[in-house]
Amino acid sequence: MSVPPKERFFEDFQPGEVLEFGDYLITEDEIIDFAKRYDPQPFHVDHQAAEQSIYGGLIASGWMTAAIVMRMLVDHFIAPASSMGSPGVDEIRWPKPVRPGDRLKLRITVVETRRSQSKPDRGIVQLQQEAINQDGETVMSIRGMGLYKCREG
Amino acid sequence: MSVPPKERFFEDFQPGEVLEFGDYLITEDEIIDFAKRYDPQPFHVDHQAAEQSIYGGLIASGWMTAAIVMRMLVDHFIAPASSMGSPGVDEIRWPKPVRPGDRLKLRITVVETRRSQSKPDRGIVQLQQEAINQDGETVMSIRGMGLYKCREG
Repeated sequence: MSVPPKERFFEDFQPGEVLEFGDYLITEDEIIDFAKRYDPQPFHVDHQAAEQSIYGGLIASGWMTAAIVMRMLVDHFIAPASSMGSPGVDEIRWPKPVRPGDRLKLRITVVETRRSQSKPDRGIVQLQQEAINQDGETVMSIRGMGLYKCREG
Repeated sequence: MSVPPKERFFEDFQPGEVLEFGDYLITEDEIIDFAKRYDPQPFHVDHQAAEQSIYGGLIASGWMTAAIVMRMLVDHFIAPASSMGSPGVDEIRWPKPVRPGDRLKLRITVVETRRSQSKPDRGIVQLQQEAINQDGETVMSIRGMGLYKCREG
């Protein structure tokens, strides 16, 4: 049996593994609150304008969806004892809008693991992350890197 | 003289052009509020834990910095009449931490412009975005794509 994500070290990740977790309900209040502060475009903050936009209704800022993905990672995936953060992420896509009432989960695929040459006490885990709504549609995808301590340094 | 960013259409972007704008003050309250909701790792929400972490003090969630970059784009750059949103972004990096009291501005470099073959009423503008602190250090970089209507379709 594999080690639970929040207890893992670098050695515990296996390329090809798929994990799913999280159940995050999107509310209209959260969409509007986030967007008023960080992304006040009409289709994120204004009901009427959103209905007349190409989206046909209020949709979440893509950066709110990114923040929610992070929350699901912190709650269910990132190991406090071994995680050393992330130097960055690549290829963020938002193929479908996120709307009030949607429920999102996260699917993680371990793409590649690579022990550091220069610092052999740690390694990089490449992850494909997909936020998926209640209809099984991917609403956001992120290719990310996580830096993890090794169990044996 | 070039067209102000918020009045632009696709044709108004010139590869190689560099624009700078924004002045966003980072407060401790915002760092903690954002992180409590979206990224509750100790070094984002807890003073004492942050001081004992590798960061030596409270730092902003990278997704908060991304959201602030978006806010500066909406306030100073994105043209309401012509912007058709973004299909995604590539290569996000966070080379330096963002701390309370930092002031961030945004530097945009127009990398490439390409009119759509299939839909000639629009084009893609590739932008390199850098959030820069008061000491001139890049704290976040994003390679982004913007979809813009053409002035003449």
